[in-house]
Amino acid sequence: MNEGSSDVAAVEQANTRFYLAFETLDLARMELVWSHGEHVKCVHPGWPILVGWDAVRSSWATIFENTAEMRFTLSDVRASACGDLAWVTCTENIFSEVHGRLAVTSVLATNLFERGPEGWRLVHHHASHILAAAPERDSPNN
Amino acid sequence: MNEGSSDVAAVEQANTRFYLAFETLDLARMELVWSHGEHVKCVHPGWPILVGWDAVRSSWATIFENTAEMRFTLSDVRASACGDLAWVTCTENIFSEVHGRLAVTSVLATNLFERGPEGWRLVHHHASHILAAAPERDSPNN
Repeated sequence: MNEGSSDVAAVEQANTRFYLAFETLDLARMELVWSHGEHVKCVHPGWPILVGWDAVRSSWATIFENTAEMRFTLSDVRASACGDLAWVTCTENIFSEVHGRLAVTSVLATNLFERGPEGWRLVHHHASHILAAAPERDSPNN
Repeated sequence: MNEGSSDVAAVEQANTRFYLAFETLDLARMELVWSHGEHVKCVHPGWPILVGWDAVRSSWATIFENTAEMRFTLSDVRASACGDLAWVTCTENIFSEVHGRLAVTSVLATNLFERGPEGWRLVHHHASHILAAAPERDSPNN
């Protein structure tokens, strides 16, 4: 990995901005976090994959319309940068209120960032739930 | 994206090799597919994240010991390369036999590859199930 510590710090900041935008439930702020290309992709927990900025933007609009409150505490944040592409894994510890239902849950996320003229922008978000037992592969050994 | 079509083709081949290694249930073949660094990570569906090659390798050993048969048909394979880091998203349509139980299921995967002296090696695999309805975010709009 030909990464610099300043790159990693900048990527971690971009990752933090993503979750701050999510917490504000403000589509304009979320738009500033993402790249807007056709190669942009997003997997919300349990959803089919969304491909292209239009589909990804639309999903955030739907989520924000249906969410009253969303608070993240991130743990296990690990960032690596390699040239103009970087990846972050983290655990999203989430407090949310959707349709009047309060929920506290943990989600694993892989976030990919691409460096362009405007800095590091999100190009892929893959989030999934941690289950008590894995469905068709065996139980974890760690 | 400063990617070349030959890079993308090579990454797609590396992605195919990963699933062929998975189908053979042969740990030695799986070892050849992955980078062996401490930055290597893996999320099997529903599992907690595994960090570092030793933990990732051990998970494959456990899975292979507990799996009688595994057959993949990949769909929606999309690869992008940016310098020496590349990412692939795909749907794994899986036929498996675990503990005598046959299952057919669909899993979404994000696979990250890093180019080193030995070509493109897997550094991160994030796989998760597609659910009928998303648990705490709203239904998809596509």
